[in-house]
Order: sequence, then C-alpha cells, then structure tokens
Amino acid sequence: MLRAPIKHCRNCGAAVVYRVPDDGDTHPRAVCPACDTIHYENPLNVVGTIPYWGEQVLLCKRNIEPRWGKWTLPAGFMELNETTAEGAARETDEEAGAQFEMEGLQSVLSVPRVGQVHLYYRARLLSDQFNPGPETIETRLYTESEIPWEEIAFKTVAETLRCFFEDRRRGTFDVHNIDLV
Amino acid sequence: MLRAPIKHCRNCGAAVVYRVPDDGDTHPRAVCPACDTIHYENPLNVVGTIPYWGEQVLLCKRNIEPRWGKWTLPAGFMELNETTAEGAARETDEEAGAQFEMEGLQSVLSVPRVGQVHLYYRARLLSDQFNPGPETIETRLYTESEIPWEEIAFKTVAETLRCFFEDRRRGTFDVHNIDLV
Repeated sequence: MLRAPIKHCRNCGAAVVYRVPDDGDTHPRAVCPACDTIHYENPLNVVGTIPYWGEQVLLCKRNIEPRWGKWTLPAGFMELNETTAEGAARETDEEAGAQFEMEGLQSVLSVPRVGQVHLYYRARLLSDQFNPGPETIETRLYTESEIPWEEIAFKTVAETLRCFFEDRRRGTFDVHNIDLV
Repeated sequence: MLRAPIKHCRNCGAAVVYRVPDDGDTHPRAVCPACDTIHYENPLNVVGTIPYWGEQVLLCKRNIEPRWGKWTLPAGFMELNETTAEGAARETDEEAGAQFEMEGLQSVLSVPRVGQVHLYYRARLLSDQFNPGPETIETRLYTESEIPWEEIAFKTVAETLRCFFEDRRRGTFDVHNIDLV
C-alpha cells in the first residue's frame, strides 16, 4: 500500500500546505491553512503468522497485487481495536481459512523504505484442511527443503521463514528483530 | 494522540461517507463519493528506550499533555523512513539528550483501546549527563527501589520497567509481548 500524498485537510477539506509546524516539530507535515489541523503520516503494521503442521509450513499463493501468483505467509494490515496477535490470527483466518492455535512472536521487521513494520507469530495448525479466501489462489504445506525461495513474495516473509527453520533446528525460539534497509 | 474522525477526502476535499467498501473489505471506512478514495486508519507505533546506567534507569518528567508532570521512559511516535530502533534512538536523543548505545528489543505492547503498539529497546548509557529537550521538565536516574510507580505516566512504561528489572535479576533478557486490554 503506497499512499498517495495528502492534498486536502481531513477536517475541513481545504488544500493543505507542507511545512514544519511551529510547535517544536522537526519534520515537514501537511498543515491546513484554514483550520490549522496538522496531518501526521506514520508507519503501518503488517501482522501475520507462520502456520506449521509437523515439519511443514503453510504458504498462500497471492491472488492480489503486488506479487500476484507469488507465495506468502498469511498477513495483512493491522486494524484499529485489535492487538498484534489478534490481527495476525484474523489474517490467517481470512487468507487461509486455517484452524490453529496462536503461539509466540517470531519476528519484528522494519521496512523503512515503505514505512512498514511486520510482526509474525508462530501458529500451530490443528488441521491440514484449509479454506482460502478471495485473496488466495491456493494454499500448500511445504517442508523446508520444498520452499520455493525464488517465488516468495516478500523479503519479510523469506527472513521470517529462515529464522523460524533455524530456531526449530536449534530447539529454541527467539524473537528476531530485523531491519530490511 | 486521539485522532479526530476523517470528515473530508485527502485527495479531493469532498465530504466522505462511512461504509464498507465493495472490494471485499469487512470494515467500514471513510470513502469519498467524488473520487472513490478509500481512507484507512491503522494503529500507530510508539518507540522508545530503557536507558540504563549501572543499576539505575533514566526517567523523564513529562512537560507535555497527556500526563504532564508524570514520569516516563523516552518514547514517541515512529516516523516514516526510520526503523523501530532508529525511532527509539531519535526519541531518546530528543527527550533526554542522552549519550547511549542501543541494545536489544525488550517489549512489544499492544494497546488496542487507543490503537497503538509500543516497542521499547534497552539502551546502555555512556554518560550520566543529560540535556533534556522541551518535552521534558527534568531527567533523573532511579534504582528499581526508587521508581515512583504511582507517578509513572503510562501502563506501557510500568510494564516495560517491570519486565526489564525482572530479566536483569534473572540474568537473561527476552522480548516481552504484552497485550494491555
């Protein structure tokens, strides 16, 4: 989701100007010359899961842009009024129609180029039957050696899968904080 | 930062209507009847540090609302084009004027009631001299037993301090994922 620039005030509709506000701020913001509203733009959180079934992980083939037809973990934009884990569970239900139990946080990845932070949780699958939603062409369970690394949609997903498999070999799971710059 | 509702389209300035978009979305959004722009509102990230000097941690007395005069860890809203750790370091510089070295992620706290996620990093202080910015009345180093728990500005800060001191007693630091619901 690349965001179009703010052109008009969300409060009164007047055309905004870009300047550093007089309140001690250090960043230029969209400021309304009519009603003085300052419009902040901040990073978005993407929340998702690594659903696993024994030695296998569940991937979803994307039915939406960007990266249509590439494989991803179930994930999407966090909504207001939910926790990071609740959002991750919601996306896993919406995109894969999976039955699962949420486990610990696996990765926190900053992607400053696009203004995003991604958070992935492990999710233990309770069934190998899925009911993918409209954003998913198909779901499939992959062992580590079967993962189509060249067909993974996003670097955040590849990094999360890598640290998940590493931790599993090691026998302990840590939270991995990764900057993709 | 409680956000005022979106009344006008950021693209064309027309008055928006609230409805569930026709694209498979499940949440009501502010939609522009003139240019069809859909306006999403998502949680904000607050990033900060636990600056420590030997047995002591650095707290800042707030010179801004909310919670003017209460004690907090240095933290603030994450900006576009920075990582979570870069944002946490920037806020520590702006609010405390501290010299420090960034360490690992300590806490990831969801606060769905206000649509926020807070992330705190440990920061090893390199000096006990500080230069607080305009948002801070004063800075002070506290040992665990001196912490003014009743005068801590936010529950996110209290929880982060508690897990930091617990981990330090235990001799290992973990990332703590906490939901404040």
